[in-house]
Amino acid sequence: MAPPHDDKAAVEVNDDSTPKRPISNVLFIIAMQTEASPLVNKFQLVEEPESVFPKGVPWVRYYGKYKDLDINIVCPGKDKILGVDSVGTVSASLLTYASIQALQPPYHKCRNCWGFKAKGASIGDVFLASDVAFHDRRIPIPVFDLYGVGSRQAFSTPNLANELNLKVGKLSTGDSLDMCPQDEAAIVANDATVKDMEGAAIAYVAHLLEVPAIFLKAVTDIIDGDKPTAEEFLQNLAAVAAALDLAATQVIDFINGKSCSEL
Amino acid sequence: MAPPHDDKAAVEVNDDSTPKRPISNVLFIIAMQTEASPLVNKFQLVEEPESVFPKGVPWVRYYGKYKDLDINIVCPGKDKILGVDSVGTVSASLLTYASIQALQPPYHKCRNCWGFKAKGASIGDVFLASDVAFHDRRIPIPVFDLYGVGSRQAFSTPNLANELNLKVGKLSTGDSLDMCPQDEAAIVANDATVKDMEGAAIAYVAHLLEVPAIFLKAVTDIIDGDKPTAEEFLQNLAAVAAALDLAATQVIDFINGKSCSEL
Repeated sequence: MAPPHDDKAAVEVNDDSTPKRPISNVLFIIAMQTEASPLVNKFQLVEEPESVFPKGVPWVRYYGKYKDLDINIVCPGKDKILGVDSVGTVSASLLTYASIQALQPPYHKCRNCWGFKAKGASIGDVFLASDVAFHDRRIPIPVFDLYGVGSRQAFSTPNLANELNLKVGKLSTGDSLDMCPQDEAAIVANDATVKDMEGAAIAYVAHLLEVPAIFLKAVTDIIDGDKPTAEEFLQNLAAVAAALDLAATQVIDFINGKSCSEL
Repeated sequence: MAPPHDDKAAVEVNDDSTPKRPISNVLFIIAMQTEASPLVNKFQLVEEPESVFPKGVPWVRYYGKYKDLDINIVCPGKDKILGVDSVGTVSASLLTYASIQALQPPYHKCRNCWGFKAKGASIGDVFLASDVAFHDRRIPIPVFDLYGVGSRQAFSTPNLANELNLKVGKLSTGDSLDMCPQDEAAIVANDATVKDMEGAAIAYVAHLLEVPAIFLKAVTDIIDGDKPTAEEFLQNLAAVAAALDLAATQVIDFINGKSCSEL
């Protein structure tokens, strides 16, 4: 069953004057189930019995009320054939699009990411992204090159960053877990401190549909460290989910009762 | 204004027994306006005055009747900020998803692509893809590696390929126009003859929503030739659009009056 749509929130999103009406609903897009579960428990959300999404898609939605906020958490779910989490930009963009269409929220995104030690990132750090861009869409034709990079600012939340003492840095997105030399050069050009596999695609959809998006990212791996990424990623995933859980709860507590312009 | 939905066609798509009912509508997903225009003219389609898509998205739909078929051509349109065609996997997957949701078609996809001389491709050749996969989603964790490659068979159309004497080969998709060594290794592993920037993402969405998809690709560039790809791509785009136009018309003429199982 779908929760009632909040048309006021939808109006608020499309209004450039960012009115003072408090935010009423928040949507989390979380790529991996391991990261979603602590938040689902924390906010005492329930899985929807009848999907708002089309028949056949593996997307999962949890929803409920926490303080004055309607909270939705959506995950791309398990690949229908292979059974692994449907990570990456294609499924993240589809899920974001379908969720915004179905739920009409201002929204909010969190997931694990990979950090650069050289830029001040440590495992377990939680970052708020100031900007997002792609690092694996090289189109060396004038203007198409900028389209490929797709650099966008996240919704600005200076009070949130100060109050919760979150680190702020640029986020770079690509569909590979590893990093080839061309990716690395693009990440450096993007001036990124953290790297993930979904952020810039979600930012693209949010921009297309004029929904403010913030990006909360917990560092699971140090790319310029000495351990192989895949190994470090799997070791740290559950532990970092706890850090993200804590930060996400603090963010939700901070958002509660505030309008977008007060963030 | 949206054309009437064809619920029979939607039922047909979800029926494993591939019944004999003739195909009634066809959706073309075409990434670049230059490639869409000849077909829009050929089939005498008109641009819809009121979009079936959400407010704010740049997606464009042309529709009309040709012989016994409802024809829709959708393009991702111009990037809202940069004004270039919205190429690549993220916008292609979103457009495919939204179009299938709005129009409920069996569908069909065509676009330019890049060919490998070493595998028998020449500029202007039109290929029908037998299989599609990604070459820029490296996730070196067991099972996730297969998810990243995302290999899928296209809907099988042996009669179509024979009748129109189309070349058949595997298609590999990535978000870059150029090809770094890691991409090249993955393309070789995918055994691809042609390369594009959208196909595997469209195949992913089609599979998710259980819609049969075929991939008609005209070669604009030879990757293993001696000209730089960006230059060759721009030179050949308009000329190859004419070859694709001819092939797409032949395909539509062949489809007209037939059921999916007769293709």
